[in-house]
Amino acid sequence: MGTIDDRLDALGIELPPPLAPPPGVVLPFAMVRVVGDRAIVSGHGPQALDGSIGGALGRVPDEVSVEQAYESARLTGLSILGDLQRTLGDLDRITAWGRVFGMVWSAPDFHAQPSVINGFSDLILDVFGHEVGAHARSAVGLASLPFRIPVEIECEVALRR
Amino acid sequence: MGTIDDRLDALGIELPPPLAPPPGVVLPFAMVRVVGDRAIVSGHGPQALDGSIGGALGRVPDEVSVEQAYESARLTGLSILGDLQRTLGDLDRITAWGRVFGMVWSAPDFHAQPSVINGFSDLILDVFGHEVGAHARSAVGLASLPFRIPVEIECEVALRR
Amino acid sequence: MGTIDDRLDALGIELPPPLAPPPGVVLPFAMVRVVGDRAIVSGHGPQALDGSIGGALGRVPDEVSVEQAYESARLTGLSILGDLQRTLGDLDRITAWGRVFGMVWSAPDFHAQPSVINGFSDLILDVFGHEVGAHARSAVGLASLPFRIPVEIECEVALRR
Repeated sequence: MGTIDDRLDALGIELPPPLAPPPGVVLPFAMVRVVGDRAIVSGHGPQALDGSIGGALGRVPDEVSVEQAYESARLTGLSILGDLQRTLGDLDRITAWGRVFGMVWSAPDFHAQPSVINGFSDLILDVFGHEVGAHARSAVGLASLPFRIPVEIECEVALRR
Repeated sequence: MGTIDDRLDALGIELPPPLAPPPGVVLPFAMVRVVGDRAIVSGHGPQALDGSIGGALGRVPDEVSVEQAYESARLTGLSILGDLQRTLGDLDRITAWGRVFGMVWSAPDFHAQPSVINGFSDLILDVFGHEVGAHARSAVGLASLPFRIPVEIECEVALRR
Repeated sequence: MGTIDDRLDALGIELPPPLAPPPGVVLPFAMVRVVGDRAIVSGHGPQALDGSIGGALGRVPDEVSVEQAYESARLTGLSILGDLQRTLGDLDRITAWGRVFGMVWSAPDFHAQPSVINGFSDLILDVFGHEVGAHARSAVGLASLPFRIPVEIECEVALRR
């Protein structure tokens, strides 16, 4: 077992299985696409441990609170780590986190998207540390997201050659 | 003629000419920017074969139906392939599709963005096949898009050195 | 002093200091993340020369006009150049601008996002010229942005090895 697996164990973190999409939904793309020494990660949402879409559903902050959305951003991070682990075989192949694009389904008068996406950033820094885990980030308000998820995140990591 | 050109011919696909922007609009950037072995593609919208903005205009689903928006995503793909062909000289230089970011001008209660952007993904997989054409993707709801287009897509491909 | 510093001087441009975030806001990420020969730039907003968030605040065009938002996009460019200069040591290390993603906090019936983000593109072309400064771009309408800023931009540049 690698260093990051040990770290996940120490933190008591379990990663979810592949996404079970809602009935009738076709997603004809890769959840992670490796191109050269980069792994490009598709937009992910919060997942429950049974593989289904997880956490509170709805717009922030009128249907889902900032605290709930923070937890959704963390669950989105776990979903991404699960897909990265399955695609890469080993999370220790990640040498650096790069771009993180955090999208929050937002009411027009909601402006605390950074506090929501911190649920993702805090997880990544906790698991990978501040050298590998450091990342560039945006956290912005979308008009709507698929399946009524409150948070969607896409990102990119660099890989050991 | 290359393999992809043959494939376009076999599918009866014609690519549009460069975008003719609406009167008075200045777009001071490259539709495709090649940096090293990557081609970074600017946000594109649906184009008609005369080069103008094409397809139904308006918000999804109140002004433009999901079926119409699926077709707009396909037209957006053709617009992107036209610009890639002109910039690269030959679409066979593309070795892998990478990131695809699909934006749908969405009513707040619309959540089927993936079904819309499938119009793009289905085209790319049909033309490039599942090895080269596989891509990472997000499909999300924007508050508004330029020129009232229902779909805008930006993406990136890897090139033969 | 390098070529780009000279150019900034000739244009009378002063770059702002690091962002002073609003009280209580934690931003646990890098404003610029260098990965290999790429500098990935986090979402930036308009900054005043004292380091605080600058320019008019609000939604475009009902609270902030297109002209004000164009100026905000320019101020966002200056904020990005400031962070790039501090991270890279020297803006002459930039060999090519790549992806630019321009986000405008937009009313649902506002569709002139390209005219707003031109404030950024015009600055970059003016400072870096049309060979290095050329970029791929999207300019789209977001439902809301952090701190009520009218414009947020993330981007990427290629670096001399």
